[in-house]
Amino acid sequence: MTTQEIADKLVELCRQGQAMEAISTLYAQDIVSVEGTPMPDGTREMHGLDAVRGKSEWWMSEHEVHSATVEGPLVSDARFCVRFVYDITNKTSGNRITMDELAVYLVKDGKIVREEFFYGA
Amino acid sequence: MTTQEIADKLVELCRQGQAMEAISTLYAQDIVSVEGTPMPDGTREMHGLDAVRGKSEWWMSEHEVHSATVEGPLVSDARFCVRFVYDITNKTSGNRITMDELAVYLVKDGKIVREEFFYGA
Repeated sequence: MTTQEIADKLVELCRQGQAMEAISTLYAQDIVSVEGTPMPDGTREMHGLDAVRGKSEWWMSEHEVHSATVEGPLVSDARFCVRFVYDITNKTSGNRITMDELAVYLVKDGKIVREEFFYGA
Repeated sequence: MTTQEIADKLVELCRQGQAMEAISTLYAQDIVSVEGTPMPDGTREMHGLDAVRGKSEWWMSEHEVHSATVEGPLVSDARFCVRFVYDITNKTSGNRITMDELAVYLVKDGKIVREEFFYGA
């Protein structure tokens, strides 16, 4: 698949709430995931499909998603950018917030090999 | 100006070939510029308006721009993404190439405080 096709497919799946399906079908085994802010253990990078899948499962178990908006993609030769807006409640704290982030993806040999999120200051 | 207004203005000025005007009017004094690949001295980050202006002047003096395409912006609350496609010839080497990059900008207090470029592998 071309970068455009992968970008369109990722947006389509995320709009349907199928983020795990997007990870399973579009991501490379050696995916690198870079968070916008450090995680609780101080790291920003996560390596490998299992780690990324685990992070997503954790995130979904921790939050109730009231609505999600996906805008884009904006596509270059090997990269694309997507905007995600989530209206969510953290199940532990009960806090309801809006997350508004950009994600930049890198495609190599027909798979997403890097995702980088941008949010916060 | 809002993030959307700054994003629209940057795209408009870049389409008109007025990148230096965009830097002078939309960038904060303490702008941080992050390159997709390390510069000749090994660094990726550049700090301050004078340094960024100097880099842009150097780049423009080094390249003949045959055409430039600007796509976007894709705008979130404090950030926006733009795609730039340049058909350029390096004046020193004579090599003609297409540069296709994404840039993510961060806005704070009505000015762009960070720009980050994504290209290459």
